[in-house]
Amino acid sequence: MQAPGVLLGPGDDAALIAAPDGRFVVTTDMLVEGRHFRRDWSGPRDIGRKAIAQNAADVVAMGAAPSAFVVALGCPADTPVDVIDALADGMWAEAGRAGASIAGGDLVRSPELVISVTAFGDPRGREPVLRSGARPGDRVAVAGRLGWSAAGLAALRQDRTGDEFAEILAAHRVPQPPYDAVLGEGWRGCRSLTDVSDGLLADLGHIAAASGVAIDLSAGALRDPELERFARALDDDAAQWILTGGEDHAFAGTWPGDADLPPGWRAIGVVTAGEGVTVDGTRRPGAGGWESFGGVDSASGPRSR
Amino acid sequence: MQAPGVLLGPGDDAALIAAPDGRFVVTTDMLVEGRHFRRDWSGPRDIGRKAIAQNAADVVAMGAAPSAFVVALGCPADTPVDVIDALADGMWAEAGRAGASIAGGDLVRSPELVISVTAFGDPRGREPVLRSGARPGDRVAVAGRLGWSAAGLAALRQDRTGDEFAEILAAHRVPQPPYDAVLGEGWRGCRSLTDVSDGLLADLGHIAAASGVAIDLSAGALRDPELERFARALDDDAAQWILTGGEDHAFAGTWPGDADLPPGWRAIGVVTAGEGVTVDGTRRPGAGGWESFGGVDSASGPRSR
Repeated sequence: MQAPGVLLGPGDDAALIAAPDGRFVVTTDMLVEGRHFRRDWSGPRDIGRKAIAQNAADVVAMGAAPSAFVVALGCPADTPVDVIDALADGMWAEAGRAGASIAGGDLVRSPELVISVTAFGDPRGREPVLRSGARPGDRVAVAGRLGWSAAGLAALRQDRTGDEFAEILAAHRVPQPPYDAVLGEGWRGCRSLTDVSDGLLADLGHIAAASGVAIDLSAGALRDPELERFARALDDDAAQWILTGGEDHAFAGTWPGDADLPPGWRAIGVVTAGEGVTVDGTRRPGAGGWESFGGVDSASGPRSR
Repeated sequence: MQAPGVLLGPGDDAALIAAPDGRFVVTTDMLVEGRHFRRDWSGPRDIGRKAIAQNAADVVAMGAAPSAFVVALGCPADTPVDVIDALADGMWAEAGRAGASIAGGDLVRSPELVISVTAFGDPRGREPVLRSGARPGDRVAVAGRLGWSAAGLAALRQDRTGDEFAEILAAHRVPQPPYDAVLGEGWRGCRSLTDVSDGLLADLGHIAAASGVAIDLSAGALRDPELERFARALDDDAAQWILTGGEDHAFAGTWPGDADLPPGWRAIGVVTAGEGVTVDGTRRPGAGGWESFGGVDSASGPRSR
């Protein structure tokens, strides 16, 4: 069933969506098989959920409530109908979790699976929260997990798909953006906001650049003992996952230094005068995060805006 | 420069678009290299224009004015920047012709070129014109050319790319939807409307089915002497191009029988009780038009909603 904001769904030349604010936010992402997902690593339902979640996170990162999604799907001619149904099921499930539905789409043939999602959101009468609003003295905070998707990817690369890695595998296959941490009332007062899609250092780098400020993170505040346990099991580096792993779609933002952080948010650093992002005052090498046209060659989420 | 309806363009997590009506229409189409276009048959600028035109036509076919587009682009790693620039130039040019601009997008790597366009439109305070509004006694009318894109495709298949075929080649490479025939004031009173993307018989079939009516076309009214001249030169059938050729993105609609047709529209048939689409009272074989997941294997525009 369509969400209330979808006034006219599929079946005509176009769908009709409510925009009670008189404005709407929009974002689009393309996922290509073999590059952004692998079907031997993720089932179609999970791929569908992830495609919607990463777009919903971009809408929510503006402070807007998701209202609808449209999906263009390219499939090989021999794609079983089961696979398309499972993809659609996953998309509807995640759209519902975000409070919206799938208002329409396009289905074409293509050599490999390509999923292009466009997401809409209602600003609900407020000004969108941009990346450019951070000010020296602000606190930096995050809502949601960091590095878990990267940990799951590391496990898949090592073919460690046993039950003991179930939590990180699930985190890689289906990110769980904490929509409510933003869409509730508590987040008001937030001065700048983004979702963590390219990696914490990269995404906070966008805020620092757009705001003309520097950000310094606390390594201690970022520690995650549970993730460190997985890192030991995989002989990998939890701090690297946390700082540069993409695709968790946590939210990161800044608040005035004297403001209380809303429920679901934890402080991880401060905004200062200057430029760039540091950890305990030190710049990390290789802090670029994922870049779609860079050299990263993985099935994880390299993408660019 | 962004159109006035684009309140915030690329650079943040999402764009912000005006929706002064409190609603917006949205449509999305995916174009895959080798299936929906061939780079040896069309230059990148033309491919960009066509991708925007076919989406703009869907917006206009609801009676809405295009306000913005977002584009997700998948490109092979070795794609020259020139090609991407020319694609973008074509997109901006056609968006401008439709009164809008490109508000944002995504750029990723993919094995072949994939273009996914999502288009938005402003209903301007009116109810969208649906496919379901045709009533027995209505006149059927079209605005724009029919069969010219199919003629150009036929010329390309025969490798007839000389100057004498320039007009049909151009029609295939860049459709010219007559946006103004709908967006002006004259079209008011239109009861049902669609764009001709899959072929006239197929698209009027959608109106007939959605409205629960039959449509009978006049072969004489559909004749196009200029196109017949091209058909003779290519030893092909102009009537077949006109009735089943997709991708011209003309507009087809119905008006009450006693209404004057607005400027730019010509009568081609009548709505009666019953079902299906006939020409001079006779059903044509193979009237299905393009179907994306059907057997059609061409570089022309097979697509489905």
